[in-house]
Amino acid sequence: MASHRVRVDALAPEMTLGPREARHLHVLRLGPGDPVRVFDGRGAEAEATVGALDEGRAVLTLGRALAGVAETPQPVTLAAPLLKGDKLADVVRAATELGVARVQLVITRHADAREIGDQKLLRLRRVAEEASKQSRRAVTPEVLSPVSLAELRWEGSLFVAQPGATARLTDYLAWDAPVTLLAGPEGGLADAEVAALETRGAVAVTLGPRILRAETAPVALLGALVATGV
Amino acid sequence: MASHRVRVDALAPEMTLGPREARHLHVLRLGPGDPVRVFDGRGAEAEATVGALDEGRAVLTLGRALAGVAETPQPVTLAAPLLKGDKLADVVRAATELGVARVQLVITRHADAREIGDQKLLRLRRVAEEASKQSRRAVTPEVLSPVSLAELRWEGSLFVAQPGATARLTDYLAWDAPVTLLAGPEGGLADAEVAALETRGAVAVTLGPRILRAETAPVALLGALVATGV
Repeated sequence: MASHRVRVDALAPEMTLGPREARHLHVLRLGPGDPVRVFDGRGAEAEATVGALDEGRAVLTLGRALAGVAETPQPVTLAAPLLKGDKLADVVRAATELGVARVQLVITRHADAREIGDQKLLRLRRVAEEASKQSRRAVTPEVLSPVSLAELRWEGSLFVAQPGATARLTDYLAWDAPVTLLAGPEGGLADAEVAALETRGAVAVTLGPRILRAETAPVALLGALVATGV
Repeated sequence: MASHRVRVDALAPEMTLGPREARHLHVLRLGPGDPVRVFDGRGAEAEATVGALDEGRAVLTLGRALAGVAETPQPVTLAAPLLKGDKLADVVRAATELGVARVQLVITRHADAREIGDQKLLRLRRVAEEASKQSRRAVTPEVLSPVSLAELRWEGSLFVAQPGATARLTDYLAWDAPVTLLAGPEGGLADAEVAALETRGAVAVTLGPRILRAETAPVALLGALVATGV
């Protein structure tokens, strides 16, 4: 069985975890002597062993170094509205570089397109494959056929970039739970669409007071994710 | 004289500032009764008056609401290496949407181009102007003729995206000081180039363990900026 992965500030012979990470070990029912994998969110990864552990603190001992991985600690999904022309390919390419586990295409009220042809979907999958290689990822993100926003399912958190929103993405990010990010199409998401997602637990977040193009906003959201290392 | 601008969490009849913002008022030599402008980093802005003030805390009273502005609280400069084809225009367009005050072109050791023609520079300036309008900014960022990295000057902080760096941009961002951001060209910045900038006070930051294209990295850096509202 693969060991659980725990983020540390930096790999060191002895690593002390803070309350959040210690709680994470509790949730995973890990205790002294159990093996884990530690990673620093910047490509370094190693085996480690749980030592002293209480609710607020845990100590890990470093083991064998592992080949660094280029994947984000938590699976990141980009929910991407259908955009015209090459814009969707541009978004898939940048999202792949920025580490998404999958791109879930979504149909929105204001949309450049209501559906996507098989050929175009295949092309997006090829774009994801090429971008994976270029960015030295071992994993190619899936590009999933479009669903309506009502059909969109997510684990963990859904953050929706919406003009006028007040919450800040970086106040919410955590490295230990799956994240889905959504930005609107040209013309934006309808207020009712955002409200419906909020009812289901989504958080609307700001990307500042300027109007972003539909192909810029998802890259900005993912940029915030990679810059915080979560 | 324009009032000094102070960021608050949200506009309210009475706003209590924390130690950092209170210190900022001290630095500006403002005291009880002085007028300031408050803004929330999300487009809302108003007049306000300084009330009680000590080293660790300050209270402001809300005045007249002002038309929201689309500019970042601190001037943001993007230092952009010369890239081939339309890539540089794409970077200027996205950077304008994301609120930069200026784009300073830079010549780097590994560069797609060593110089830029007058026509191309004019075109970049037109791109910035169009993108300003589309993103509803009142201000068009300057696009400045290239300088070498040795000639690059900055106020406040310079953050350099560099593979293998360990610092996280979002741990350093502050809304009250100018920021310059630099990401490398295709082929990356040479280690010696980054080291020379670090000697001058620059901070190398991570954008995760994957390799980003030269046109993606600056958008990711600026995305982190706008997502934190600074």
